[in-house]
Amino acid sequence: MLEINPERFHETFEQYSEVGGTANGGLDRLALSATDGEIRDKFVSDLEALGLSVRIDELGNIFGRRSGADQSANPILIGSHLDSQPSGGRYDGQLGVLTALETIRVFENLDIETQRPIEIVNWTNEEGSRFKPALMGSGAWVGIHDVDEILSTTDEQGTSVEDALTQIGYDGESPCNPNQIPHAYLELHVEQGPVLEECGREIGIVEGILGMAWLEATIYGEADHAGPSPMHTRSDSLVAAADVITGIRRLSNHLADDVVTTVGELTIEPNSVNVIPSKASFTIDLRSYDYDVVTRGIDQIEAELSSACTREGTEYDLEELWRIPHTEFSQQICNSLETVADELGLSHERMIGGAGHDASYLADVTQTGLVFVHSVDGKTHNEQEFTQWDDAVAGAEVFANTVLKLANSEETSQ
Amino acid sequence: MLEINPERFHETFEQYSEVGGTANGGLDRLALSATDGEIRDKFVSDLEALGLSVRIDELGNIFGRRSGADQSANPILIGSHLDSQPSGGRYDGQLGVLTALETIRVFENLDIETQRPIEIVNWTNEEGSRFKPALMGSGAWVGIHDVDEILSTTDEQGTSVEDALTQIGYDGESPCNPNQIPHAYLELHVEQGPVLEECGREIGIVEGILGMAWLEATIYGEADHAGPSPMHTRSDSLVAAADVITGIRRLSNHLADDVVTTVGELTIEPNSVNVIPSKASFTIDLRSYDYDVVTRGIDQIEAELSSACTREGTEYDLEELWRIPHTEFSQQICNSLETVADELGLSHERMIGGAGHDASYLADVTQTGLVFVHSVDGKTHNEQEFTQWDDAVAGAEVFANTVLKLANSEETSQ
Ligand SMILES: NC(=O)NCCC(=O)O
Ligand SMILES: NC(=O)NCCC(=O)O
Repeated sequence: MLEINPERFHETFEQYSEVGGTANGGLDRLALSATDGEIRDKFVSDLEALGLSVRIDELGNIFGRRSGADQSANPILIGSHLDSQPSGGRYDGQLGVLTALETIRVFENLDIETQRPIEIVNWTNEEGSRFKPALMGSGAWVGIHDVDEILSTTDEQGTSVEDALTQIGYDGESPCNPNQIPHAYLELHVEQGPVLEECGREIGIVEGILGMAWLEATIYGEADHAGPSPMHTRSDSLVAAADVITGIRRLSNHLADDVVTTVGELTIEPNSVNVIPSKASFTIDLRSYDYDVVTRGIDQIEAELSSACTREGTEYDLEELWRIPHTEFSQQICNSLETVADELGLSHERMIGGAGHDASYLADVTQTGLVFVHSVDGKTHNEQEFTQWDDAVAGAEVFANTVLKLANSEETSQ
Repeated sequence: MLEINPERFHETFEQYSEVGGTANGGLDRLALSATDGEIRDKFVSDLEALGLSVRIDELGNIFGRRSGADQSANPILIGSHLDSQPSGGRYDGQLGVLTALETIRVFENLDIETQRPIEIVNWTNEEGSRFKPALMGSGAWVGIHDVDEILSTTDEQGTSVEDALTQIGYDGESPCNPNQIPHAYLELHVEQGPVLEECGREIGIVEGILGMAWLEATIYGEADHAGPSPMHTRSDSLVAAADVITGIRRLSNHLADDVVTTVGELTIEPNSVNVIPSKASFTIDLRSYDYDVVTRGIDQIEAELSSACTREGTEYDLEELWRIPHTEFSQQICNSLETVADELGLSHERMIGGAGHDASYLADVTQTGLVFVHSVDGKTHNEQEFTQWDDAVAGAEVFANTVLKLANSEETSQ
């Protein structure tokens, strides 16, 4: 079995973590920010140092290609994302990219020539925090999003993806689509949830991912004075929003066991201490494996909005920002990952993931696998996110050995 | 009886409304902003054109003095404020300053020499929207606030009152305190509530103002991922805040008939669509005439916070930003206003005001009166705020005639 170099792997991880590193040990490296630009420069120079041929596409997705014995064979694509949440952890995404990088370094050091080319990728804006939706680069690459539409998407400050790409010099030339469909896509990620910790196993073999919807609700009330306006005459957009938010918290009780709902963004206007808020806007993140449940959840959210607004005399809009059905990953790759884990003597657990990953969109075009490693306390999107390095190394060895198998597999791509 | 000049009064009002005027017919002239600087310049030049002697104090309060026959007599102080809410109306404050200005113009035109000097004032930051608390300039002037503490108060962007004053050139020399206690203070304001409209009378004679408290609550939860974090493990600061906000909405039901409660400001962190909010901060505005009720209201708010945080596994802080007891205005001035209104054939209503006014602090140091004119639909702190010009004129005539009486009154100051 291949062994990775744990020290080199760790040292690289520490170097990457410095770019956008926060005082609390987390990362603040929003998609296409200056720090994202900086980490991309480092990534590209690391790819070039390995002799990979680098290409950047129109949405800033970065690819590095290592030749195979059969140059015309469909490549194995491996990677993840280097962007982070505004106060996110160091493992989310970054660990997957660096596991892919370490895999190629091992192949180089051992002079391994694979049958198929291998391509490493850093996908643009997986997080969806600065620009919506999430999984932006991979979604456009597989053809789910229109590239021009994505380029004109703006952040809260009104900066477009196109301008942000230009500002950091990652408005690439290469078209944002697969010129050759990969034979397989493999990604490693921290679990970001409690399952591995609870079952006490080392490797998560991900069979699927929850379906999800992102919605934006806007409630329109009427501004008035906090003093002389009698309570019964008020149309307070924030009171209505609060009513909906507590209702959304309970949605999960009636719909299905795996439903999760979150209001992550909220802003009110005019946001002045002695003014009844005239406008409240908030996002809703709703997930379940069962797509029907997601749809019924949206209906229930609309019902909550409607009854809260009737009570408060406010009006509302509900907009769907993004929806993605649940993912089912390749059982063949799950089996390969399981075999490799067994060969390495590592315990494993088949599971469903709760977070979206670029692997979800890749599964639309090729056989795809996703490996999870432990997240201490399941904590993520939090500066305290942590993974024991031994767990990262175990995951990387399962990953590298599976890539080697896939890269030498004869079977034609799907 | 003195008559004001309705056309001149209206023309001046229209001119003043252009500075910081919004597309929707409102005002955006936050305290010590560039537009506040601009309107102050206009005000000072209007005072100088009347031959008044202008002085600016350390907090930017602007005074203009018109001599009286007896220069050593305690002056009559008249005025209000020129600052506005971020999307406020054109009448709130401005109408009071311009009523005072029109009063002095009438005295000038008719060559009226009063016994006592008359001073007109524009108080700094009545609204409390950019810098807290409200009634800042008047509160410091009467000695309730420490001037140095106020100077170092900052807005959301971290700009201090001191720097903001310097930026617009209103960091005056004159000490912020009365060198001579005024014989009386008189202010005219739009009612900002529904009482005059409901009772169908023209002039509001304000006997008192609700006591009020401004609080800031901060709820600390834990950031985590909107997907893989099971609902039962979450500590969502926004869910807890929403729970408190709906609870605060109902406070008024148990405490007293006149209680009003408002959450006007709310911000959450990290404010990202797929992250459970780790921190939610919001203000609470609580008012009632009975100071005990305000105190019990604060206890109930704390109880709401405590139970919501127990349910959600979050922690909280509750800080008191400002508190002001209810005001009782001078019965003698109420009587004078009533007599003048009767003489002018105007209907009137004695009432309690729900909004804070600079007159509240002035009532701490001298006999004080407050005149209300109609607010259509009681709407205020809203760009649609509106007062029929006839109502403004009626109020200004009551005002000017009462000022004349006070300025010639022999009785010594309190
Ligand atoms: N892995 C991850 O945090 N993805 C962001 C997209 C999501 O919200 O699931
Ligand atoms: N009149 C007025 O709007 N004052 C602001 C202070 C308050 O909130 O009552």
